Amino acid sequence: MDLNSDLGESLGAWRMGDDDAMLGIVSSANVACGFHAGDAAGILRTLRAAARQGVTVGAHVAYPDLAGFGRRNMDVASADLVADVIYQIGALKGLAKVAGTTVRYVKPHGALYNTIAHDERQARDVIEAIRAIDDSLYLVGLAGSPLLQWARESGLRTVAEAFADRAYTPQGTLVSRREKGAVLHDAGEVAARMLRLATEGVVQAIDGSTVRIEADSICVHGDSPGAIEMAREVRALFERSGVTVKSFVDAVPDGARR
Amino acid sequence: MDLNSDLGESLGAWRMGDDDAMLGIVSSANVACGFHAGDAAGILRTLRAAARQGVTVGAHVAYPDLAGFGRRNMDVASADLVADVIYQIGALKGLAKVAGTTVRYVKPHGALYNTIAHDERQARDVIEAIRAIDDSLYLVGLAGSPLLQWARESGLRTVAEAFADRAYTPQGTLVSRREKGAVLHDAGEVAARMLRLATEGVVQAIDGSTVRIEADSICVHGDSPGAIEMAREVRALFERSGVTVKSFVDAVPDGARR
Amino acid sequence: MDLNSDLGESLGAWRMGDDDAMLGIVSSANVACGFHAGDAAGILRTLRAAARQGVTVGAHVAYPDLAGFGRRNMDVASADLVADVIYQIGALKGLAKVAGTTVRYVKPHGALYNTIAHDERQARDVIEAIRAIDDSLYLVGLAGSPLLQWARESGLRTVAEAFADRAYTPQGTLVSRREKGAVLHDAGEVAARMLRLATEGVVQAIDGSTVRIEADSICVHGDSPGAIEMAREVRALFERSGVTVKSFVDAVPDGARR
Amino acid sequence: MDLNSDLGESLGAWRMGDDDAMLGIVSSANVACGFHAGDAAGILRTLRAAARQGVTVGAHVAYPDLAGFGRRNMDVASADLVADVIYQIGALKGLAKVAGTTVRYVKPHGALYNTIAHDERQARDVIEAIRAIDDSLYLVGLAGSPLLQWARESGLRTVAEAFADRAYTPQGTLVSRREKGAVLHDAGEVAARMLRLATEGVVQAIDGSTVRIEADSICVHGDSPGAIEMAREVRALFERSGVTVKSFVDAVPDGARR
Repeated sequence: MDLNSDLGESLGAWRMGDDDAMLGIVSSANVACGFHAGDAAGILRTLRAAARQGVTVGAHVAYPDLAGFGRRNMDVASADLVADVIYQIGALKGLAKVAGTTVRYVKPHGALYNTIAHDERQARDVIEAIRAIDDSLYLVGLAGSPLLQWARESGLRTVAEAFADRAYTPQGTLVSRREKGAVLHDAGEVAARMLRLATEGVVQAIDGSTVRIEADSICVHGDSPGAIEMAREVRALFERSGVTVKSFVDAVPDGARR
Repeated sequence: MDLNSDLGESLGAWRMGDDDAMLGIVSSANVACGFHAGDAAGILRTLRAAARQGVTVGAHVAYPDLAGFGRRNMDVASADLVADVIYQIGALKGLAKVAGTTVRYVKPHGALYNTIAHDERQARDVIEAIRAIDDSLYLVGLAGSPLLQWARESGLRTVAEAFADRAYTPQGTLVSRREKGAVLHDAGEVAARMLRLATEGVVQAIDGSTVRIEADSICVHGDSPGAIEMAREVRALFERSGVTVKSFVDAVPDGARR
Repeated sequence: MDLNSDLGESLGAWRMGDDDAMLGIVSSANVACGFHAGDAAGILRTLRAAARQGVTVGAHVAYPDLAGFGRRNMDVASADLVADVIYQIGALKGLAKVAGTTVRYVKPHGALYNTIAHDERQARDVIEAIRAIDDSLYLVGLAGSPLLQWARESGLRTVAEAFADRAYTPQGTLVSRREKGAVLHDAGEVAARMLRLATEGVVQAIDGSTVRIEADSICVHGDSPGAIEMAREVRALFERSGVTVKSFVDAVPDGARR
Repeated sequence: MDLNSDLGESLGAWRMGDDDAMLGIVSSANVACGFHAGDAAGILRTLRAAARQGVTVGAHVAYPDLAGFGRRNMDVASADLVADVIYQIGALKGLAKVAGTTVRYVKPHGALYNTIAHDERQARDVIEAIRAIDDSLYLVGLAGSPLLQWARESGLRTVAEAFADRAYTPQGTLVSRREKGAVLHDAGEVAARMLRLATEGVVQAIDGSTVRIEADSICVHGDSPGAIEMAREVRALFERSGVTVKSFVDAVPDGARR
């Protein structure tokens, strides 16, 4: 099973997260591209650390919104969205090459991630951008969302993602953050849930029922010491239980998943 | 002889220059990379037009300063300058690939151009960045400046540039814009001067003496109708006089100039 | 009748509109505050010109989106929207004082204008911001929109605005730009329509019917030579017809409209 | 003696410093204005906390450089620098009014602070900007620098500042950060030095000699837990020693210092 986390999100004098710690835990690093976070020098440092630790690198593309950290919905026209995504992937590819690694996937960030899970116009813009610059890139998106279907139809390889610290509805969608119990805080419970997901392909929904989630990757967070601890616990339980943590890129031969 | 011009410098709702007109005149397009000018969608449009018209594309990298259009000196630390230049080249490479063309050279913009002509620390940062991302890229710099020497020593191919509308000192340096007569306005005179430069390798300096300028490319501007007219006049005179306007990239076999 | 226009929208090296020409035509200047357009030095120049020509000044507040010129919907949280609006008004007040004039009103720009015409949450954020920094400021908004009602209830003085070059539905709302005939191009026709609006309080709707529009101000554009010509024609016809062009601020004693 | 610190420097999702802790220690808050740090909502929160705690507020104006945190020298033209400073002070005044407090002084930040200590052109631009928007504002600058003299000659009230954690030369200037021993780390030693400065007007220079520093305010930092601890120690020693910590604004009647 792949574990992924958002990295490279510092900006100039502002620190965010502990990239070195997380690179010791995850198998995939979603690296900021400068639109919601990340300056070039900091991104390069994170890419070099990822290369050193053998962690697979993806482009964490976003809306152009530093002040809002890419978390605000923006009604971006298609010509802009397509070009903005290409620009970000290109910039990260350049830095990755210098760092001795390669961008292997794209995971949209924040509001863009949530929007394209269901909004077909913006989803097709992102898919078009990825295919135009490099159609060997994987697209990481919300497990069960129509995005993954649209992307596969267009010829992209897709990776379905689950969230370690989020509750699920009986329908297999995320419980809205506005609702009670949407975010899980107990590291042991989270690790146990993710182990079940990795081995049985199910999680317990918020109503107690069991729901099937087809996930190729699990997102863990690193923006607080508690979050890093939770990620470490997930990995440790996986290893104790014989579930190998490795990138989806390594999991199957290139081209086989398409 | 190569003619180059700064393009792709519009930003969102703001227009600058007439890229389509200039792409019919020049052989090399210095395309903005988003740090001093240019949004991704506009850059992509310019790259597509350059590809259509067979104009060679270069990365017009700059300090991060939209408000100052990259014309203000900035004391950027080496780690930032190196990474910023890689980021910009990478972003442009990504967009160029989608546009069906390739970034072949780098021409720093504005204050960065002027600074690295003589400032060794920042010059070596830019050289390091270019070599790290793609050592087949040419570096376009001020004719006669130490930058070109430093770049060649490091293994980069260099292109010495003259400015069509600028007066030269008897020493072959540019007359400062603050001095009278520094900028030339008569299109016919400019065209005649550039023809002499292209055929004899000399220009008349501001004191009337003749000075040798080794230039592989001539910069023409397109930011006003008058500037476009001047560029057109240079090209027309070149063609009437048997001087072929073509990219320095085409002029010699790859590797021969190193 | 008041004529207003968007000014101060240049940014660094990029020009937009001809502020000097428009300041000779309009009675109210909606001056950019740096979030969708405008740098401080350019804003100050426009404010000085407005002061010289006796044109009333308003703050043209916007979402933080230079690349999108403030025309993209953004889901900005209330704490941010309130503070961003205060920040922009404060900045413009500072510059206006130095220019020898005073900010008298607020007209939201672009996507923010359209959103708060109907979205109560964001509308109340803007109203709260204006009241908090200076409750003597007028709020200019879309004629007939609920925004004006919410603002009046909160104690703000409001100004209902019509658009010179836009078609209206029989219900008195703007015909969507996506529909044919939404934007009018004939200066003579526009001037005649606005004269009728100013004298009879009605316009001919797109279906030929007559619709009542209660407007205290008419927005004219200046972003192209044709737009300036249209604005000039509206003013000229008003003057020939005895309709005085003057700011709504001058039209009634302070406090009387509340 | 006044203690001042840089506050309001968070940006969107990025935190910096612990404003609440520092507001319990200092008598003056240099609040970011959005050019090097600070978003409007965060600035407003800091201003409200300052108002609650009775801490005097100043505008921490800077070059427009978020990526460089305002620490990079920039060759900003006078028209831009004057207007940028007015814009920032105006924005902070607007937010301060809403927070129930008032901007009483200006302390330039980072590279701007260092530059105008000695660069007369930029110094006079900042002085002109302050006088234009509000000539009752104090200007806080480097003790012993020509800036203070220029400002006083122009009619501004000035405040000479010393740095708690910095070593001084026998001439009373700061030891360059590039030299060994330039930055002091021992909280007890720093507190003792500042007590001597406050009571005797001298500090021990780096060579062991005693040097006179005329300082009206001491800058303490709060960007790390250790820095906050040092600030707390300075204040505690002052209080134990009978040196009252209070704003320079309260120290003398308005107008008396001019």
